[in-house]
Amino acid sequence: MNMIEFGRDILNRQSFSRLLGAELLAFEPGRAELRLPLRDDLKQQHGFAHGGLIAYLADNALTFAGGSALGGEAVVSQEMKINYIRPGIGAALIARAETLSTGTSQAVVRCDVFALADDGSEKLCAAAQGTIVRLAKG
Amino acid sequence: MNMIEFGRDILNRQSFSRLLGAELLAFEPGRAELRLPLRDDLKQQHGFAHGGLIAYLADNALTFAGGSALGGEAVVSQEMKINYIRPGIGAALIARAETLSTGTSQAVVRCDVFALADDGSEKLCAAAQGTIVRLAKG
Amino acid sequence: MNMIEFGRDILNRQSFSRLLGAELLAFEPGRAELRLPLRDDLKQQHGFAHGGLIAYLADNALTFAGGSALGGEAVVSQEMKINYIRPGIGAALIARAETLSTGTSQAVVRCDVFALADDGSEKLCAAAQGTIVRLAKG
Amino acid sequence: MNMIEFGRDILNRQSFSRLLGAELLAFEPGRAELRLPLRDDLKQQHGFAHGGLIAYLADNALTFAGGSALGGEAVVSQEMKINYIRPGIGAALIARAETLSTGTSQAVVRCDVFALADDGSEKLCAAAQGTIVRLAKG
Repeated sequence: MNMIEFGRDILNRQSFSRLLGAELLAFEPGRAELRLPLRDDLKQQHGFAHGGLIAYLADNALTFAGGSALGGEAVVSQEMKINYIRPGIGAALIARAETLSTGTSQAVVRCDVFALADDGSEKLCAAAQGTIVRLAKG
Repeated sequence: MNMIEFGRDILNRQSFSRLLGAELLAFEPGRAELRLPLRDDLKQQHGFAHGGLIAYLADNALTFAGGSALGGEAVVSQEMKINYIRPGIGAALIARAETLSTGTSQAVVRCDVFALADDGSEKLCAAAQGTIVRLAKG
Repeated sequence: MNMIEFGRDILNRQSFSRLLGAELLAFEPGRAELRLPLRDDLKQQHGFAHGGLIAYLADNALTFAGGSALGGEAVVSQEMKINYIRPGIGAALIARAETLSTGTSQAVVRCDVFALADDGSEKLCAAAQGTIVRLAKG
Repeated sequence: MNMIEFGRDILNRQSFSRLLGAELLAFEPGRAELRLPLRDDLKQQHGFAHGGLIAYLADNALTFAGGSALGGEAVVSQEMKINYIRPGIGAALIARAETLSTGTSQAVVRCDVFALADDGSEKLCAAAQGTIVRLAKG
């Protein structure tokens, strides 16, 4: 199983990601890209993508990027921060995360979330930063 | 329509919140409490509530608390930060948010998210803080 | 040496804290309170306490509170977040930090920073949250 | 007065920045670079640059970058978040901030802080992200 298949297998075992319809577009050491088509049942009262949906996508992209750098799936997000920049409107959201630093047990990662219009253009929708840590062994 | 009915009406017009099954338990000026029963389709690969789900609930509780302080539904979260403390395991998640300060156009709000066990006991699962702003008039 | 003396000894060995004039008012397991008299050389161009000064005080109060919970001085702040609420004006700044959760190697801590007026009244000036970790042994 | 002189004039009117010895190396629309020589009186008890000092430098670089994008000096940081990555050791700290988005009244900005060794090499020491806002007119 190559790396992108490994990542898609993890994503597929996240029932929440299946419910929302997230897709893993890229997965390399220290880097991950997720795509989420914007369905009608993912919105808030103004018709935009719910902020919590954008936070989910950022959190997951941060975790995939950090996990790929730390090596393995036994990782979780320890903390993250997100600035919402533009309403999430369009065909899909794209989250691109990249690791800034990787230690033995944690990675610091940044993520940009873009709103993808029907014509294929992208606009920055949110910017996130967080810490991904290896799960302590039980 | 009293305040809790007003809040539940907004929540009900968030298709994403309906999809996830969030319920508004309390809604007063500067304060909001949301409950989210933990279904099987809300989890990550280790069987815990997905971090993105916890982030959604915190984001929404922050926004309801801040919106109630600012007066009105035309508010959005501008930024938020979350520290994950314990795995989200149990019957439900409960998010309680309270406004720290309210200005003319923005509120700073804190939120605690608890995991509710079957026996009714609560454990702190995450802690969040964020800024809620009035939407600029179009 | 009792606990407050232990804390004051650490603070005194922080040359930066001596330069700024920080004082440790309270120090108990999971809790710390720092005071910083507002001198003229601690300001920005509008005459308020510099935001970086407020961030310093929050960072240090978070670290003292988290360190007291983790037990020991070999701790550092791993990340923190601060919302600035009101200008830092008055006789002094007071930072009060309290631990939300303590694990084997890290603590999640919150901190409120108040501006203390000449008449002794306090106004919330900033709110912070962060993670304090034990230093890995070399 | 050109742009860098304008920026240095603001920095010079920050008494706190004079106390710490910060220098403005670059200042363009949406971008700022600050340098801070690491003196002995800027440290914590382990001999590293105090985390609060790094937070100050990040906060100030974020504010200069955001202010240059918003146009003017009447700006303040509204919130910021910092991940500490490596100890601040060496001859100086360098903070480079760049605006991600600029609206009518606020900018979202990222900042990297590097530790500069005596041999001129740089290591990433901290990563920050924040919101800079125009001061409301009195």
